[in-house]
Amino acid sequence: MAELAGNCLIGQSGGPTAVINASVAGIVSEALNHSCIEEVYGALNGVAGILNEDLVDLAAESQQAIRGLRTTPGAALGSCRAKLKKPADFDRALEVFKAHQIRYYFHIGDADSQETAVKLAETARAAGYELRVIGIPKSIDNDVPVTDHCPGYGSAAKFIATTVRELSIDADATSLHDIVTIVEVMGRNTGWLAAAATLAKRRDHPNDPPHLVYVPEVAFSGEKFAEDVRRILKREKHCVVVVGEGLVDKDGNYVAVETGEVAGAAQFGGVGDHLREIVETQVGAKVRVARLGVAQRAAAHLVSKTDADEAFLAGQAAVKAAVNGESGKLVTLVRGDSEHYTCETGLTSLAELTGNLKKLPPEWVNEDGVSMNFQFYRYATPLIQGEVALTYDTGLPVYSRLAKESVDKTLPGYES
Amino acid sequence: MAELAGNCLIGQSGGPTAVINASVAGIVSEALNHSCIEEVYGALNGVAGILNEDLVDLAAESQQAIRGLRTTPGAALGSCRAKLKKPADFDRALEVFKAHQIRYYFHIGDADSQETAVKLAETARAAGYELRVIGIPKSIDNDVPVTDHCPGYGSAAKFIATTVRELSIDADATSLHDIVTIVEVMGRNTGWLAAAATLAKRRDHPNDPPHLVYVPEVAFSGEKFAEDVRRILKREKHCVVVVGEGLVDKDGNYVAVETGEVAGAAQFGGVGDHLREIVETQVGAKVRVARLGVAQRAAAHLVSKTDADEAFLAGQAAVKAAVNGESGKLVTLVRGDSEHYTCETGLTSLAELTGNLKKLPPEWVNEDGVSMNFQFYRYATPLIQGEVALTYDTGLPVYSRLAKESVDKTLPGYES
Repeated sequence: MAELAGNCLIGQSGGPTAVINASVAGIVSEALNHSCIEEVYGALNGVAGILNEDLVDLAAESQQAIRGLRTTPGAALGSCRAKLKKPADFDRALEVFKAHQIRYYFHIGDADSQETAVKLAETARAAGYELRVIGIPKSIDNDVPVTDHCPGYGSAAKFIATTVRELSIDADATSLHDIVTIVEVMGRNTGWLAAAATLAKRRDHPNDPPHLVYVPEVAFSGEKFAEDVRRILKREKHCVVVVGEGLVDKDGNYVAVETGEVAGAAQFGGVGDHLREIVETQVGAKVRVARLGVAQRAAAHLVSKTDADEAFLAGQAAVKAAVNGESGKLVTLVRGDSEHYTCETGLTSLAELTGNLKKLPPEWVNEDGVSMNFQFYRYATPLIQGEVALTYDTGLPVYSRLAKESVDKTLPGYES
Repeated sequence: MAELAGNCLIGQSGGPTAVINASVAGIVSEALNHSCIEEVYGALNGVAGILNEDLVDLAAESQQAIRGLRTTPGAALGSCRAKLKKPADFDRALEVFKAHQIRYYFHIGDADSQETAVKLAETARAAGYELRVIGIPKSIDNDVPVTDHCPGYGSAAKFIATTVRELSIDADATSLHDIVTIVEVMGRNTGWLAAAATLAKRRDHPNDPPHLVYVPEVAFSGEKFAEDVRRILKREKHCVVVVGEGLVDKDGNYVAVETGEVAGAAQFGGVGDHLREIVETQVGAKVRVARLGVAQRAAAHLVSKTDADEAFLAGQAAVKAAVNGESGKLVTLVRGDSEHYTCETGLTSLAELTGNLKKLPPEWVNEDGVSMNFQFYRYATPLIQGEVALTYDTGLPVYSRLAKESVDKTLPGYES
């Protein structure tokens, strides 16, 4: 493989995770090891930055700032929900790549957004411009197929399990009277996040909270729910319920979707209040609802070290693959076969991603429909292991802010 | 002062805080230093445990378990919202105290619940039974008067400020289009918790999020709110709003109270959704709402070391005071006069507490009505300092569970 000399560009896409910036840090650190890569650029707000030629010089950032990215929430380069669609947009992107001698493009995003990476690679190939494109997965939802698990999931799972454990201890302390605690978590189409709450149970304590976990993979029935709550209240005097926002009924309809659309997708949230109503009217118990919201993906103060390390590793692996001549590939996380958890990176074709979402396997849910069996524990427990020591200043975690030194524009403006 | 030999009893009351158990640890540790105190008992679920003679032997707990209480959420002895009211209840309580030679009673609770402690002391005095009663304050709301600040507040403030900083960084990363993030925090009648979110701003960065903080001490106007949001969106492209649940309008009516009553008090929550509606209909921006809920008082994984240490200290001080002959007193936290923060404990009459709530001083709120001035920062910053290293097991914080060895009952049952 002939060495390809040029600059590299990083783009972030979709909702941030607590460790999406760790992948940026991995790419930057690794890129500096390869002499064929000259400049290391970031696109501000993903594809928007590419179209607008809004690039920043990441090699100019302090080492401290790049190291700090390993545990900084949000998307340090800015993110973007939009995808490139029009042929003119791809032509423009190619023009920007050419103008800045971008030969390596690293796209950190969920399954859906990797379509843009695929098409960027195709556009360049069709134009005879040598460009190596590697995707790095990110998702708290853990719904990206072909990878054992997705960077971002472990930290969200750790935060959710910790918070549910804490809320449950609090609820238990005040359970002289029947009380139902409902925790609404994210997970638009899959139950990985809701299922993660079951990690809050101590080993060999199946009756520990959370008592009832409702995932989108199991059709929801209000009647069964009321029955479930009554059963738990009888046994425990309080009941901790965890519910994924994307819950569907037996006909496949969402149980609760709020009005309003975001970039064409339904805006979720509200299923917790829907369940509250069922308890109040059909069970007659006191309810309190917590909606963890964006905290699930932003709680960098409680990242899983395993997750942060793997997100960093995925970034490094992307650079190594590209330098070795790979393109049109997605970095995956591959779990070892042994009892002791190990994880290394793999590569798979980006084209394989289109349209599929990885669901929670139905056989990992117990027959009661509201708890997970050992297969889920075996899968998820390793992903939340380890803590990262943060730097605190005046009582609060210090997070990295990039200087974002602009790269000079050389092209005329562009109206998408 | 003649030495008073006998047993001591601890009761917890009201909503837990992240450090209410640190006060229990402080009492137990200190009690074991005094030979006049023989047994160290806990009342299960506060006054309910006293009436039902449900006492547990805290001296029998492992040292590990007691040490772990310093960072365990919930109320380790169980809590209770009920107050003793009927004269017969007080007579029964005294009977239980006599039966178990309780000569020292430590009541950990908010301002309101200390009324029970006052009346227990009066009942004993009237009956000629020597009993020393000391109250220890706890409240995430920080609304207990006579103490500079209240154990529990610092940890809730640290959690809120950290979470708001994280949510804000996340929102900033995705702010290509106008987006409003609303964080609903607790604070039934006072704005201490909402104000704490302003600690998320870095020093000398007044434009940092949270951009708008609404506290119950400032009359809320929907029109001004919409105007505020428009102004911030124009400047920042995104807007982070923090709102206390107990917001009131200019006539003193709650802006949003949910249906349902809890132990006679209105059940709060919902003001975030109320504000969402205003933004959606009057400003036309996308909104996302997080309701931190009980996580604010239960997030022991992020306690303020200052707060945990002071809660422990307050427990120790209560025992020392009682052994020295004090009774009918509340332990207070007293801030030193110097620039460098210092804090020691004081004592004040429990009778002074009745009915008053400590509000956020209006002169600490800036003229814009949505931000705090240096006086608040000077007050609150020291309270969130320091982190406590927790023990983690399989990726989650380990919290203490007491063995709760029952003390044999000697009295007939009691129907309250």
